[in-house]
Amino acid sequence: MSEIAIVMGSDSDLPVMSKAAKLLEEFGVSFEMRIISAHRQPEELIAYTGRAAERGIKVIIAGAGLAAALPGMCAAVFPLPVIGVPLEAGPLSGQDALYSIVQMPPGVPVGSVGIGGAVNAALLALRILAVSDAGILEKLKAYQKRQAEKVAEKDRRLTENGYQA
Amino acid sequence: MSEIAIVMGSDSDLPVMSKAAKLLEEFGVSFEMRIISAHRQPEELIAYTGRAAERGIKVIIAGAGLAAALPGMCAAVFPLPVIGVPLEAGPLSGQDALYSIVQMPPGVPVGSVGIGGAVNAALLALRILAVSDAGILEKLKAYQKRQAEKVAEKDRRLTENGYQA
Amino acid sequence: MSEIAIVMGSDSDLPVMSKAAKLLEEFGVSFEMRIISAHRQPEELIAYTGRAAERGIKVIIAGAGLAAALPGMCAAVFPLPVIGVPLEAGPLSGQDALYSIVQMPPGVPVGSVGIGGAVNAALLALRILAVSDAGILEKLKAYQKRQAEKVAEKDRRLTENGYQA
Amino acid sequence: MSEIAIVMGSDSDLPVMSKAAKLLEEFGVSFEMRIISAHRQPEELIAYTGRAAERGIKVIIAGAGLAAALPGMCAAVFPLPVIGVPLEAGPLSGQDALYSIVQMPPGVPVGSVGIGGAVNAALLALRILAVSDAGILEKLKAYQKRQAEKVAEKDRRLTENGYQA
Amino acid sequence: MSEIAIVMGSDSDLPVMSKAAKLLEEFGVSFEMRIISAHRQPEELIAYTGRAAERGIKVIIAGAGLAAALPGMCAAVFPLPVIGVPLEAGPLSGQDALYSIVQMPPGVPVGSVGIGGAVNAALLALRILAVSDAGILEKLKAYQKRQAEKVAEKDRRLTENGYQA
Amino acid sequence: MSEIAIVMGSDSDLPVMSKAAKLLEEFGVSFEMRIISAHRQPEELIAYTGRAAERGIKVIIAGAGLAAALPGMCAAVFPLPVIGVPLEAGPLSGQDALYSIVQMPPGVPVGSVGIGGAVNAALLALRILAVSDAGILEKLKAYQKRQAEKVAEKDRRLTENGYQA
Amino acid sequence: MSEIAIVMGSDSDLPVMSKAAKLLEEFGVSFEMRIISAHRQPEELIAYTGRAAERGIKVIIAGAGLAAALPGMCAAVFPLPVIGVPLEAGPLSGQDALYSIVQMPPGVPVGSVGIGGAVNAALLALRILAVSDAGILEKLKAYQKRQAEKVAEKDRRLTENGYQA
Amino acid sequence: MSEIAIVMGSDSDLPVMSKAAKLLEEFGVSFEMRIISAHRQPEELIAYTGRAAERGIKVIIAGAGLAAALPGMCAAVFPLPVIGVPLEAGPLSGQDALYSIVQMPPGVPVGSVGIGGAVNAALLALRILAVSDAGILEKLKAYQKRQAEKVAEKDRRLTENGYQA
Repeated sequence: MSEIAIVMGSDSDLPVMSKAAKLLEEFGVSFEMRIISAHRQPEELIAYTGRAAERGIKVIIAGAGLAAALPGMCAAVFPLPVIGVPLEAGPLSGQDALYSIVQMPPGVPVGSVGIGGAVNAALLALRILAVSDAGILEKLKAYQKRQAEKVAEKDRRLTENGYQA
Repeated sequence: MSEIAIVMGSDSDLPVMSKAAKLLEEFGVSFEMRIISAHRQPEELIAYTGRAAERGIKVIIAGAGLAAALPGMCAAVFPLPVIGVPLEAGPLSGQDALYSIVQMPPGVPVGSVGIGGAVNAALLALRILAVSDAGILEKLKAYQKRQAEKVAEKDRRLTENGYQA
Repeated sequence: MSEIAIVMGSDSDLPVMSKAAKLLEEFGVSFEMRIISAHRQPEELIAYTGRAAERGIKVIIAGAGLAAALPGMCAAVFPLPVIGVPLEAGPLSGQDALYSIVQMPPGVPVGSVGIGGAVNAALLALRILAVSDAGILEKLKAYQKRQAEKVAEKDRRLTENGYQA
Repeated sequence: MSEIAIVMGSDSDLPVMSKAAKLLEEFGVSFEMRIISAHRQPEELIAYTGRAAERGIKVIIAGAGLAAALPGMCAAVFPLPVIGVPLEAGPLSGQDALYSIVQMPPGVPVGSVGIGGAVNAALLALRILAVSDAGILEKLKAYQKRQAEKVAEKDRRLTENGYQA
Repeated sequence: MSEIAIVMGSDSDLPVMSKAAKLLEEFGVSFEMRIISAHRQPEELIAYTGRAAERGIKVIIAGAGLAAALPGMCAAVFPLPVIGVPLEAGPLSGQDALYSIVQMPPGVPVGSVGIGGAVNAALLALRILAVSDAGILEKLKAYQKRQAEKVAEKDRRLTENGYQA
Repeated sequence: MSEIAIVMGSDSDLPVMSKAAKLLEEFGVSFEMRIISAHRQPEELIAYTGRAAERGIKVIIAGAGLAAALPGMCAAVFPLPVIGVPLEAGPLSGQDALYSIVQMPPGVPVGSVGIGGAVNAALLALRILAVSDAGILEKLKAYQKRQAEKVAEKDRRLTENGYQA
Repeated sequence: MSEIAIVMGSDSDLPVMSKAAKLLEEFGVSFEMRIISAHRQPEELIAYTGRAAERGIKVIIAGAGLAAALPGMCAAVFPLPVIGVPLEAGPLSGQDALYSIVQMPPGVPVGSVGIGGAVNAALLALRILAVSDAGILEKLKAYQKRQAEKVAEKDRRLTENGYQA
Repeated sequence: MSEIAIVMGSDSDLPVMSKAAKLLEEFGVSFEMRIISAHRQPEELIAYTGRAAERGIKVIIAGAGLAAALPGMCAAVFPLPVIGVPLEAGPLSGQDALYSIVQMPPGVPVGSVGIGGAVNAALLALRILAVSDAGILEKLKAYQKRQAEKVAEKDRRLTENGYQA
């Protein structure tokens, strides 16, 4: 049984969305990864999202480009949190996907991360789990600390070696 | 039995979408008008669009604002032409709706008119019917002629009275 | 003890952010509402967000306009979910706030709703609580159902009375 | 005699517009392909579009970049459906062409597909023919089904092999 | 016989385009003002612009909003200078008209002024006439001087009265 | 003595602006080409543009990127036509230069061509000269005709060889 | 003798730019306020900015809308800091002015504040003076403290009275 | 003791921000260069910026991409001038960083240079120092002169060799 579902509309979205999968693996959180297209398989999508909660899915991460309907359609059926990942596809740099994902009408919420932000989508999903899972919360704090240490380490190297190095 | 369906997600879209209805009435073409929300009634929408063709609907005109999923979801199920009308709602002047409607992935076509372009949506639907209906074609030619005459009439008045009038 | 914190940088944000408060009240979820400015009270913000989790806050909803740093700075300290609400302030229609909130660097997630989307921010917070609270989940399902019914009711009225009414 | 005309203003548009031609061929629908420039051959364009309907053309697909006047000028003369394809040319990523094509004044409809959306333009033309051609309608349904199956097949492969593969 | 033609597609453009007319009157330059729509009267437009040069028109000022094809179509036929005036019409603040006017393909030049810039369009037309008309050149220099004096006068008043006045 | 001046702010603008020079050479019109920076040599620019008309310059073509002040500053001093060429420089695709050039305040006109539109700038300058030079007018008509013939030739080749060739 | 110059191109800019004047008065810093137009008085502007430093001016605050050349032209001549204030004028919401002010070429720096940001321009000028004036620095710290206290006071009132009040 | 601090949030910003460092070295002005992330090290940033003024730092140059909070957070604590450098990172060409940096709320000023404008940031910092340092002022005037000479030299070469060379 998976706690998180990573859904995307096309296998061309895999290189970006896999970053979310990798992070969830690092945190030891179970997930499933599916390719289901809102525009090509609307009934399959509704069937899948309609059963997801009872199957144990707690958060859906949905990535899509262009007229990115996937995250919104997930949120239309699935009653738990949906995180949208606008993907850069086509000539508009993901601006189209960002608008299509973030500008949801009142009543149907999607939490959007930045364009291509699969890592942050996974982190937001983990934070959601952490609301009721102290173990994940501790891991998240450690992750945050390591992030700060990495920056500090880069800062030390810059100070020691100078910017020309 | 209606030939054209005008669908919108909210009754706040009625003032704009009614312009399409009025024009279809002028042309004597039967239509039905429905409020169905892609994000609030995904299953009803799929049921409706799934039966529309066999019920005799030949073209769907779908108007939506914000993350305007309605036209694309109609086109995902209904196999005949879908015309999208991006509506001005919220602070982004309809730019969000335009992108959400026009930037469809390959395989699922929506023909988008301009922002707030309900009149043109009706005209495009009529042109589609006119492909196989010589009567409508004649009416469309007459309409186009009247449009040109109206401009010519305005031009005559400007020339006669001058721009100060 | 509150479960959700609604934070904003200025009292000019209250009219929009109050919509989130009203919805949480409807759902019977405890919340606190604070005006703290990232740019005018950086230390107070860090102190507040640093203690929030241990005080029982499970989700922060942060609304901000212009160079909207508040949601991101909340997410920098608070280890649980932060929902950003870009607000329309100044001449750029909230586009500046949207970018400032959604385009977070990898490692520090904010889930952004649409511009002015305080209602959806509250709903997303409720969905997050619902991951581990079956009572809220039931209420959310009922809310979603009522939403669909309202649209259906509008549709019935349109069908009965016609669009001219 | 062709049923569909694919028109573009320059041979630099051929690589994208050929995708529409290929799809029409797959569907066994006759078409003609022409290079006529609205800005360099306005009279030829008017002559061509003025005779197109009586020559049997039922839909014009017009692709153009930059200040893309071609689709609108086709719709000004040709009384049947015109589908516009905004093309990416120059530094503005096709945003200029999209506005020039989609923002038509009331009275002269163009149905715009997405930037570079020649495949969808062909599909929309086919859907228009399908309104009065049951054979094409069947082929479109089969196409839609194959599309869904392709996604399902990719989903199966992902599930079997994992995202690292 | 007029030297300059001011053309627009609709009488709703008159309030802005009249500013150009007023300025030409001030300079004592003969002009004609016409409402001709590129999208509703393409043949009339080509006929008009095709005869304009031999009728003595030296510059065409063409104002249009939305998918503003008028200036470009004038430049396609008329061999002398065409000045485009993008007009604010519809929700996109004239950005659509600006792109539709300024992004002309190589070979067909339009000189665009700013959105709503009818005064500058008239001044540019006058500068064009001034290339071969020393009288207009003198008037333009005097105009430029008066403009500078008006600013200087405002500056004096500010210095004398202070900014509170 | 040159009739046209091509001015730019940096030698990095030469590759684009040279297209204007080449076209003027083809038409046998004398021109001078100068690198003068509005922001680095404001006094030199004013001196140059202040003397240009009496030196026989009839039109200035000014190309600039980024916060492109050059065309506007030319128009501030030089009393005859100034044509602006927004150049693609830096990350904003020339959108910044377009705004900086086209959005001139009333009283100081610049005629802007499209981004990178040096060829059209030269053609517009030639059209301006053609107002009082029948020889150039004939050449422009011939140029326009050749342009149309080139498109027709491409069309013939497409029709003969098919789009796969 | 004034330490700061507030310059603008038109008296229509006074309502916004006066906010800078008011703040400087509050801080007891001497300033002069001038209306000089880059596009209408280029020589006067160069004369003024050329003498400003020796007259004791330490910072120029320049506000402008549209193709806002003023700040950049000030920075081209005046060797000390220039702060640009993009003003909302015309239909593009100040986006044109922002680009025209902030996207300066390397070598000629302008520090831009936000659209309409006259208060911040004055504060930035004061911070610049504070680099070498301990008295202003103390006042700035007190100002910053009062700002924080005002937010805290609003927060207290919200907590006491609730958001409905 | 350094007079200027160059701060950035990631070592990926070094290639651009180093241009500021190089220029400060050329001018012989002492500086320190630090990598501190607003979103990953909020407390370290506040500690650093809180002590910077008493450590002798007179100006902070802060570069950041995406939801660029760094410059604003520096200005929230550090009472002397902060110069923001929006960096191109991610798909939005630095437009997101520009908005996040320049659109500061009233009371907390950041002076933004153009996207990627590290050289201008250093020059603006030098101009700020030059307000109270006649030596730097002389060097800045010499720099400005050399810049003008370089352009003049390019102009000479163009005039001598022609544009084909």
